[in-house]
Amino acid sequence: MAQSMLLYWSSGSPPCWRVKIALEEKQLQGYKHKLLSFDKNEHKCEEVKALNPRVQVPTFKHGDIVVNESFAACLYLESAFKSQGTRLIPDDPAEQALVYQRMFETNNLQQKMYDVAFYEWHVPEGERHESALKRNKESLIAELKLWDGYLEEMGKGSYLAGKNFTMADVVCFPVIVFFPRLHCPPERCPRLMEYYKMLKDRPSIKASWPPHWLEKPEGQDMLKNL
Amino acid sequence: MAQSMLLYWSSGSPPCWRVKIALEEKQLQGYKHKLLSFDKNEHKCEEVKALNPRVQVPTFKHGDIVVNESFAACLYLESAFKSQGTRLIPDDPAEQALVYQRMFETNNLQQKMYDVAFYEWHVPEGERHESALKRNKESLIAELKLWDGYLEEMGKGSYLAGKNFTMADVVCFPVIVFFPRLHCPPERCPRLMEYYKMLKDRPSIKASWPPHWLEKPEGQDMLKNL
Repeated sequence: MAQSMLLYWSSGSPPCWRVKIALEEKQLQGYKHKLLSFDKNEHKCEEVKALNPRVQVPTFKHGDIVVNESFAACLYLESAFKSQGTRLIPDDPAEQALVYQRMFETNNLQQKMYDVAFYEWHVPEGERHESALKRNKESLIAELKLWDGYLEEMGKGSYLAGKNFTMADVVCFPVIVFFPRLHCPPERCPRLMEYYKMLKDRPSIKASWPPHWLEKPEGQDMLKNL
Repeated sequence: MAQSMLLYWSSGSPPCWRVKIALEEKQLQGYKHKLLSFDKNEHKCEEVKALNPRVQVPTFKHGDIVVNESFAACLYLESAFKSQGTRLIPDDPAEQALVYQRMFETNNLQQKMYDVAFYEWHVPEGERHESALKRNKESLIAELKLWDGYLEEMGKGSYLAGKNFTMADVVCFPVIVFFPRLHCPPERCPRLMEYYKMLKDRPSIKASWPPHWLEKPEGQDMLKNL
């Protein structure tokens, strides 16, 4: 099945990374893929455009089925290969509800992380304000506290939605990884840092680690002053 | 089952509305609910806080299960009541992929609509820029064109993900409705306007129509100059 899959992706993009983790967890190694450089604007290529009117990565194709939104691709893969590899969405209603809840809360963490770490990248110079960045930082600090509290409450060694690795981890880990990488002070989220250490060597995550991070293990320090 | 459900919600909030539509479609009428006023800040109450650390609506409880993110609540309801009411996520892999794809693309449309219609509400006065609002408008116009194209391609009378009403419609209709309501020029998205007219009297949507919109059928004109 994996041979009929094609993923266009970029190194270090959380949406791309989550699709790659899902593919690994569902034992779909061997899928075709094409690494495109953001810096060289390669993701704006004709091949991507033909499959994705947003001209973004990830762009993912399985046979004739095209599904590009990262959450959509992950849910599709879980559904299409339910009994293969890791079960990422549990059947038990209470467990399932928590997986969904944490999955979608991830959008908050991702946006707030971007709003601080990539503020200068997203906001043109003449539109930047110290007051906005200060507000963004406060909001991110509160968000981290929330996630750290979730892990604290669930106890040592827990994944984001309980005792098992689930789709919540698939979608959120590629965001969480930016906190240690961009030098966030560990005291802002000690439980998340433990969680990061617990997951970073998981086979699906190791196999999909951004190649340009392997070349440059030390990230920039955009979250140093959080 | 519906008697063991409790929804805290606000009138006119797209995330709240989508949970209400899902409840109607899954034949879960009779759920308990509490309407909270944004204007009076009622959604910041202790009852909500006890169930939702983000202190937001929707806040949704089914027995002991709490699931507050609107997409999470909708997916949970579909899964827990799969064979009851309207089937919102089809089994066919290609159909399912498209439903997921449009569901998650909704976040783009919603954010871009907010970034124009509620720009002054979200951005403090000293941080507003004509250049940003202009960029937001261009981005929203392009986004509308994309959705209009999807409907155009699928043909007259089509729902967002094909011939049937699905979860894509549940999550996206409460965003699309803002375009006619806030006086968006119909020529910006003629197919979406037809889609709106086709859906506005659907029983699940009519039953969950924001009560303060019934009192004031004429909305403000924040999208008039799009």
